[in-house]
Amino acid sequence: MAANDTVNIPQKQKAAIYDEPGKVSTKVVELDVPEPGNGQVLIKLTHSGVCHSDYGVMTNTWRTLPYPTQPGQVGGHEGVGHIVKLGPGAETSGLKLGDRVGVKWVSKACTSCQACFAGADGCCFNQQISGYYTPGTFQQYTLGPANYVTPIPDSLSSVEAAPMLCAGVTMLSALNRSKALPGQWVVISGIGGLGHLACQLASKGMGFRVIAIDHGSKEELAKQSGAEHFIDFTKFDKATLTEHVKALTDGLGAHAVVVCTAANAAYGQAVQLLRFNGTLVCVGIPEGDFVAISGAAPGILIAKQLNITGSAVGNRQEAMQTLDFAARGVLKTHYQTKKLEDLTSVFEQMEKGQLQGRVVLELP
Amino acid sequence: MAANDTVNIPQKQKAAIYDEPGKVSTKVVELDVPEPGNGQVLIKLTHSGVCHSDYGVMTNTWRTLPYPTQPGQVGGHEGVGHIVKLGPGAETSGLKLGDRVGVKWVSKACTSCQACFAGADGCCFNQQISGYYTPGTFQQYTLGPANYVTPIPDSLSSVEAAPMLCAGVTMLSALNRSKALPGQWVVISGIGGLGHLACQLASKGMGFRVIAIDHGSKEELAKQSGAEHFIDFTKFDKATLTEHVKALTDGLGAHAVVVCTAANAAYGQAVQLLRFNGTLVCVGIPEGDFVAISGAAPGILIAKQLNITGSAVGNRQEAMQTLDFAARGVLKTHYQTKKLEDLTSVFEQMEKGQLQGRVVLELP
Amino acid sequence: MAANDTVNIPQKQKAAIYDEPGKVSTKVVELDVPEPGNGQVLIKLTHSGVCHSDYGVMTNTWRTLPYPTQPGQVGGHEGVGHIVKLGPGAETSGLKLGDRVGVKWVSKACTSCQACFAGADGCCFNQQISGYYTPGTFQQYTLGPANYVTPIPDSLSSVEAAPMLCAGVTMLSALNRSKALPGQWVVISGIGGLGHLACQLASKGMGFRVIAIDHGSKEELAKQSGAEHFIDFTKFDKATLTEHVKALTDGLGAHAVVVCTAANAAYGQAVQLLRFNGTLVCVGIPEGDFVAISGAAPGILIAKQLNITGSAVGNRQEAMQTLDFAARGVLKTHYQTKKLEDLTSVFEQMEKGQLQGRVVLELP
Amino acid sequence: MAANDTVNIPQKQKAAIYDEPGKVSTKVVELDVPEPGNGQVLIKLTHSGVCHSDYGVMTNTWRTLPYPTQPGQVGGHEGVGHIVKLGPGAETSGLKLGDRVGVKWVSKACTSCQACFAGADGCCFNQQISGYYTPGTFQQYTLGPANYVTPIPDSLSSVEAAPMLCAGVTMLSALNRSKALPGQWVVISGIGGLGHLACQLASKGMGFRVIAIDHGSKEELAKQSGAEHFIDFTKFDKATLTEHVKALTDGLGAHAVVVCTAANAAYGQAVQLLRFNGTLVCVGIPEGDFVAISGAAPGILIAKQLNITGSAVGNRQEAMQTLDFAARGVLKTHYQTKKLEDLTSVFEQMEKGQLQGRVVLELP
Repeated sequence: MAANDTVNIPQKQKAAIYDEPGKVSTKVVELDVPEPGNGQVLIKLTHSGVCHSDYGVMTNTWRTLPYPTQPGQVGGHEGVGHIVKLGPGAETSGLKLGDRVGVKWVSKACTSCQACFAGADGCCFNQQISGYYTPGTFQQYTLGPANYVTPIPDSLSSVEAAPMLCAGVTMLSALNRSKALPGQWVVISGIGGLGHLACQLASKGMGFRVIAIDHGSKEELAKQSGAEHFIDFTKFDKATLTEHVKALTDGLGAHAVVVCTAANAAYGQAVQLLRFNGTLVCVGIPEGDFVAISGAAPGILIAKQLNITGSAVGNRQEAMQTLDFAARGVLKTHYQTKKLEDLTSVFEQMEKGQLQGRVVLELP
Repeated sequence: MAANDTVNIPQKQKAAIYDEPGKVSTKVVELDVPEPGNGQVLIKLTHSGVCHSDYGVMTNTWRTLPYPTQPGQVGGHEGVGHIVKLGPGAETSGLKLGDRVGVKWVSKACTSCQACFAGADGCCFNQQISGYYTPGTFQQYTLGPANYVTPIPDSLSSVEAAPMLCAGVTMLSALNRSKALPGQWVVISGIGGLGHLACQLASKGMGFRVIAIDHGSKEELAKQSGAEHFIDFTKFDKATLTEHVKALTDGLGAHAVVVCTAANAAYGQAVQLLRFNGTLVCVGIPEGDFVAISGAAPGILIAKQLNITGSAVGNRQEAMQTLDFAARGVLKTHYQTKKLEDLTSVFEQMEKGQLQGRVVLELP
Repeated sequence: MAANDTVNIPQKQKAAIYDEPGKVSTKVVELDVPEPGNGQVLIKLTHSGVCHSDYGVMTNTWRTLPYPTQPGQVGGHEGVGHIVKLGPGAETSGLKLGDRVGVKWVSKACTSCQACFAGADGCCFNQQISGYYTPGTFQQYTLGPANYVTPIPDSLSSVEAAPMLCAGVTMLSALNRSKALPGQWVVISGIGGLGHLACQLASKGMGFRVIAIDHGSKEELAKQSGAEHFIDFTKFDKATLTEHVKALTDGLGAHAVVVCTAANAAYGQAVQLLRFNGTLVCVGIPEGDFVAISGAAPGILIAKQLNITGSAVGNRQEAMQTLDFAARGVLKTHYQTKKLEDLTSVFEQMEKGQLQGRVVLELP
Repeated sequence: MAANDTVNIPQKQKAAIYDEPGKVSTKVVELDVPEPGNGQVLIKLTHSGVCHSDYGVMTNTWRTLPYPTQPGQVGGHEGVGHIVKLGPGAETSGLKLGDRVGVKWVSKACTSCQACFAGADGCCFNQQISGYYTPGTFQQYTLGPANYVTPIPDSLSSVEAAPMLCAGVTMLSALNRSKALPGQWVVISGIGGLGHLACQLASKGMGFRVIAIDHGSKEELAKQSGAEHFIDFTKFDKATLTEHVKALTDGLGAHAVVVCTAANAAYGQAVQLLRFNGTLVCVGIPEGDFVAISGAAPGILIAKQLNITGSAVGNRQEAMQTLDFAARGVLKTHYQTKKLEDLTSVFEQMEKGQLQGRVVLELP
C-alpha cells in the first residue's frame, strides 16, 4: 500500500441506505466517496458486522436515540478496512496509508467533556454514533477521526475483527467495571451475542470463574465459551436459584453478576446472587418503560454493602485490548458472511430471530 | 489510674434493662459486675448516647434483627468509659488500665469472615450488637474485646465522644464509599442526626462541596454544618429539583448523593441528581417493605455509568478517624445530658419526636 | 465581547523572544498575529506568569528537553487571556468568543497515545510545550487547541489565575497521587513556589494534616499556608528528624511525603518518614546526574509495603480543579506585576535568587 | 474424624529442633504435645515444607530478624495437618475437629494494628513468625490461632498444599500489588522457587502476559510455567535488554516488573523496562547492606509517572486464594518428600545449592 494509492480512489461508491426508516428496508445506491476533513482518515472498508442495534436504528425502535433516523442514512458501526487517504493533520496520530483500522458505535468523541477527560470516551457527552449521526459502515468508503479509529492487530483477520468492535468491547468494559479479581466468581446472565463473549473474556482472558445463566438451549455455547457451571433458569424459582448459586460459591454468592440480557426478570434476581461487597453490572437495557431493579432496595444494599453500576460501550483503549484478546484467540465468535445486497434479508431474519451467529458483510 | 484500681471494682452495679420489650419501658436494676474473659476488658462507663436504634431494639420494631429482644436486656451502644480490668491476653492489644475507650453498635467482630479479612468489620458475618446480643452501655460496667473497643483521643471529652461512635462513624464510612474527591459536589439528603454530621465531615473534614436537601426548618442547621447550598424540597417537584441541583453544579449534577433519611421519596429523586460516573450512597433504611430505588433502572444507570452502593456502620479504623475529626473540632453535635433514671422518659420524647439534639446519659 | 470583535484583531503584535538562547536575554519585537488553524483558538493574552522553567528553557539548562532552544523563540507557559477568534471546528468545544482561557506548560496533547487514553494528558507521549516547541505566552496573542486551553472561572481574576496553571496544577496532581485520605498526615518537603501551594491545597482543600519541612526562614510561610507543624531540618540529623515526625504522627510516620524541592538530601530522608503502606511522591527533579533515592532499597520498601511514585505536571481536569480551588480562595499566591519590557531583569533577579514571590507580566 | 478423637492425642511427640543455632544442625527430640489455649487449635501435622527462610533462621543469617534464634527452637512455617483439639472459644471460627488447615510464615497476627485494620495482616506490626517466635511445623503437633490458620480445599492434597503457604501466597500478593490488568505485560525477573510460581499465577491464573528473565538454564521451567517469552539476561547488556523488552511490548515497555530474585543487578535494570505509569514490585531482598534501586531516581520516575512498591508475604485471604488456585491446577510445584530425620541433610543440600525443587517433610 503506497502513498500514491490515493490515485485509485473512485469518485463513486456503493452504499446501503435506510430508504424507509421505520421499516425493515435497505437499498443499495451509488454515493459520492467523501473527502477526509481535518484530522480524518478515509477508510476503504472490506467488512462490516450487522448488529441488532442497526436494526433498532433502522426501525426507529431504539428509544434512547434523540431523533428519528433520516431517510438515506447509511447504517452500520462495526467496520474494518484500510486507510486510503489522510486528511490534513491526521498524520500526527501515527497512522499511515494502508493501516487496517476499525469503526465503532461511537464514531467520534469530543475530547473536551468530563467523560473524555476521564478516559471514558464511550460516554462522551457529545458522541457521534456511526450509522445514525454519521454515515456508517454499510458502504465501501467511510470517514473516521484519526484519533478515534481502532488499529487492527496484524494477526487478526478483518472478518473476525468486525464483530469484536461492538459486542466484544462492551463486555470487556463491563467486566472491568465488575471489580472482580482473578479466581473470583462472576455470574453471566444471558448467553447470547454479548454473553457468550463475556464468558470467553471472563474465563479465558481475565481468570474469573464463570457461572452462566440462561435457558437450557444455551448450555453448550456457555460451556464452550468457558463457563464452569451452567444454570438453566427454567428449572428454578428465585429462591432456589439463589441457593444454587450460593452452593456453587462457598455458600456466599458471586463476587459479581453481569446482566447481558434485556429481561427484567434477570435483573430481578441478580442482586440476591451477590456476596458481601459484590457488584451488579448492568449491560442489557430492558425495553419499554424504565423499571427499577427489583432487588435494588436500600436495606438490601446496605446490609451487604452491595454495589450496582451501569456499563456502556467501552472506550478506545478497551477496544484495542479487546482486539488484542481476539488476536490471541481468547475471543471467538461464530459468523457467516453476506453481501451488501443481502442486507435487507439479513435484517428480516434478525427480526424473526432466525439468524445463527453473527453476520459480517463482505464489502465489494 | 493505677493498676491496683481493680480493688475498687464493686460486685454490683446499676443498669437500665428493657423490662417489657415491645413497649417503651426501661427499669433501673442492680446487676452483677461482669468478669472480663479472654481478650476482654472491663470498662467503667461514664457516658452513653441514646440512639434511635436503641428505641428500635427496645420496641422490637427494628425488623432486620433476627429475634425478639429478650426481657432483661441491657441496651445501649454508644458508650465511653475507662478500662478498670484486663482479662487474660488483653494486654497484647496495647491497652492499659485507665485508658478511655468506646463501645460501638458492633460490639465484637469475628476476625475470621470475608468481611473481617477485607477490613470491613462493620459488616462482619458474625457480628455481635451491643445492647441486643450483648449487655450494652446503659449500665455502669460493660465488657468489650480489647481488639475492638475504640481508644478515645485525649483532647476529646467523653460526653462528646459518645454520640460519635455510631452516627459519626456511619457517615464517615458512607462518605468514603461515595468516591467523591476534594472539591467535588456531594448532595446530603436528609439533615437530621446523621445528615448534619455528614455535612460537617464532608465540608470541613474532607474538602467536598455540600448541597443539603431537607424541608426548610433544617436550613440553619445545614448551613451551620457547612452546607454551601440548601434546598427546601417542599418548594420543588422532582424535575425542577433536578434542574436546580444541575444549575448549582456546572450543569452536570453532583458527583455523589448520600441519602441519610429513610424516606423513599428521597431515594426516588437521588439517581437523577448524579452526573456521569456519579455514586448514590444508601444509608437510611426505609421502613416497611423493601422498595427498589425508583431511578435504579438499568437504562438510566448505563447511559451515564452511574453507581449505587450501600453503606453500613463503618469499621474500627473509621471509628478512630471519626473520633480524631471530633477531637480536632471538625465534628460537633448538640447534646443534652440525662441520668440513667431518665431513660424511659427520653425514649418517650424520642417516640413523640420531641427531642432536641442528642441525649447522652451520665452514668453514676 | 461580541462575535465581530475579530475585526479589531491587529496584524502585528508585541512579543518577547529569546534572542540569544543560552544567555539571560530577551528582546521585545514585533511579530505577526497568527491565524487559528483547525480546532484552534486565538487568545488575546492579558497576563503571563514567569516560571523558573522558562529560565531553564531560555538558558538551555533544562537538560530533559530534547534539543537546544532556538533563537527567536517566544517563551512563557502560564498565560491567561480571552478568545478573539475561533479556527475551523473549534466551536465544537463549546468555547465562545470572549471566553477567558489559560495556556499551560503542555500546550497541546495528541489525544491518541496511551497516556491520553488514560486521561493522563500531562504525560502525553507527543506533548508540545508552550514557550519551547510552540510560541508561548510572552506575547499579546497566542494560539491554543480549543480542547486543551483551560477555562478560567468567572470569580478568579486573570492575574491570580496565571501562576496557578503551572505550579498549582502540579501540586494538585502530586497530592492526588499520594493516595492520602482526609485526616491523614502528609509531609511537604520544601516550602518554595510549589511547596507553599501544596500546603494550601493539602490542608485547606483536601483535608490532609500537613507537616512542612524546610529551613527556618520558611516557617511563617508554611504556617500561613496551613501547615499544622513546621520542622526546621537544620536542627535535626536524619535519625532525630525521623523520630520527630513519628512523634507527631502517632508514632507511626506520615501517610505520604511529597518532595517539592530538588535537593537529593530531601529525597534521602523521605522514605524513612513513611508509615506502613505510605507513599513518597517525587515532584522536584534534582539537577546533575540521576541519583537513586537513598532509602529506595528493596528491603526497606518490602518491610512496610511502601510506595514511591513520580508525578509530572497534571492533566486538563486537574487544571480546572486547581483553578476552582483558587476561585474559592483555597489557593493564594504572592505575586508582583511587571511589564513585558521588564522580562530580562525579572530573569536576572530570578538567577540571583532575589525574586520575592511570583512575577506576572501584564501584557499590553 | 470424630469429636472424641482427642482421646488419641499422645502426651509426647517427635520434633526437630535447632540444637546449635548458627550452624546447619537439627536434632529430633521428644517434646510435650502442647495444649491449645484460648482461641487456638491443636493441629496434627502430616506435612511441612522446608523453605530457604528456615535455613536463614537456623543459621542466624536472616538479618532482618530482631534477635538470635534460641537453641531448642522448633523451626518450619509451611505446615499442613488436621485439627485434633479446639481450645476455648476456637469454635466461633467455624473450624471443626478434623478440618485440614495450614500454618504460614506469620503464625499469628494481632488483629489490632493499622496493618491488621487494613486487612494487611501479613504486615502485622506485632506478627509472630512460625519456627522462630513460636514452635513451628517441624514436629507432629503444633498450635495455631483458629482465626489465622488457613483451611485447605478438599481437592488439594496436603503434600501439595504445604509449599503454597509461603512461596505461593507471596507471589499472589506481589502480583496483586502490581496493578496489572488481564492482557497486560508483566516481567518476572528471576525464575526460581518464587518466580516459577509467579509465572504460573500470572499467566494461567490472572490473564497477564509474561516475559521471564533469568539465565538460560531456566528457560524450560519458565516456558512450562506459562511465560510467553524468555530472555536470557547473559546475552544482553542493560541497554539492549531494555530494547528487547520494548520490542516485545508494542515498543512501550511492560506494565509491571516483579523482581523475585535478590540480585541487585535485577533491580538495577527493572525501572527501565516499565512503560508509562508502570509498577515495579520488589519481592526479593538483596543480601548485605541496603542498596537503593539504581533506576529509582526522581527524574526518571517523574517523566513516566512510574511506581515502585514493596510486597511482603501476603495476607490470610490471599493464602486462601492461593490454595484455591493450587486446587484448580493453576499452581503446581515440583517437590520430593523426606522424613523428619532427613532434615539436617536437606539443609546441607540447600546450603550447597544441590536441591532439585521443593522438599516436603512427611511427618510421622
